[in-house]
Amino acid sequence: MIDKFAFRNGMSRLAAAVAIITTDGEAGRHGFTASAVVSVSDDPPTLIVCMNRKVKSNPHFKDNAVLGVNVLGTCHRTLSDNFAGGKRTPEERYAEGSWTTLSTGAPILEDAAAAFDCVIQQTFEIGSHTVFVCSVIDVHLGATEQTLVYAGRQYHDVILNAATA
Amino acid sequence: MIDKFAFRNGMSRLAAAVAIITTDGEAGRHGFTASAVVSVSDDPPTLIVCMNRKVKSNPHFKDNAVLGVNVLGTCHRTLSDNFAGGKRTPEERYAEGSWTTLSTGAPILEDAAAAFDCVIQQTFEIGSHTVFVCSVIDVHLGATEQTLVYAGRQYHDVILNAATA
Repeated sequence: MIDKFAFRNGMSRLAAAVAIITTDGEAGRHGFTASAVVSVSDDPPTLIVCMNRKVKSNPHFKDNAVLGVNVLGTCHRTLSDNFAGGKRTPEERYAEGSWTTLSTGAPILEDAAAAFDCVIQQTFEIGSHTVFVCSVIDVHLGATEQTLVYAGRQYHDVILNAATA
Repeated sequence: MIDKFAFRNGMSRLAAAVAIITTDGEAGRHGFTASAVVSVSDDPPTLIVCMNRKVKSNPHFKDNAVLGVNVLGTCHRTLSDNFAGGKRTPEERYAEGSWTTLSTGAPILEDAAAAFDCVIQQTFEIGSHTVFVCSVIDVHLGATEQTLVYAGRQYHDVILNAATA
């Protein structure tokens, strides 16, 4: 078995979209920046989000049982930083950005490249993280055509409709 | 609930690394191209791979109980196409590329941006797909510094150590 540093070093080479994961409900409004979102099944529409169990808002996502996946555009780097780490309050995190809701009440970013409004169907605790298996109830496509990608421990811009070579 | 076309349209905006998922063992050598790979936990090192249940080699991955995740570089577009879809035999898929093995025997691409050698710990059937939860036994870092990303239904190049703006 390799150690976590070798694993992280390898994983830094797996490019990933950057998303803000949100929730709202009786346990309050919370959110965090994630690069661990993956499509599982299109029938029924299902995705997975992985979240560190040490993040303070982890139990609140479970209590609310809904979440929004907001795929960030390149204009959202500051917003991404605001939702990363554990220092800011929910109010500070949501101070910027244009937020709305769809069906579940989870905050949806109006100009996200894409936003998925989800009900949490199942949770699995695997090592350091919670795996949320989510049914996608609604989708919103924002105007952003340039998406934010994290790879090699830095941000990159990917233009969705780039002219092909 | 949204339909699968709306879901796919939204998911096309979630950029993802392209990887070739491999296996070898008593059920034979198989492989497919995937963009649904995600890091779950670094302690113990764990990742998830999602695979359509309709893919013919799906049961062979379960039987072998090992898999390799080979994160592709921009030089691997042809290889990515060779492992995509259901038309080619395993022999045709593996005809190109420089393959080796690490601990488990799953094929590892020598010049992958990163390759993870894994034992399948758990499988979940979720809708149309199987979710493989994998323990990462070994990691290989190839020389490739440019990784292949799929977004907006096309390939993109992401340079891992790009000069930051």
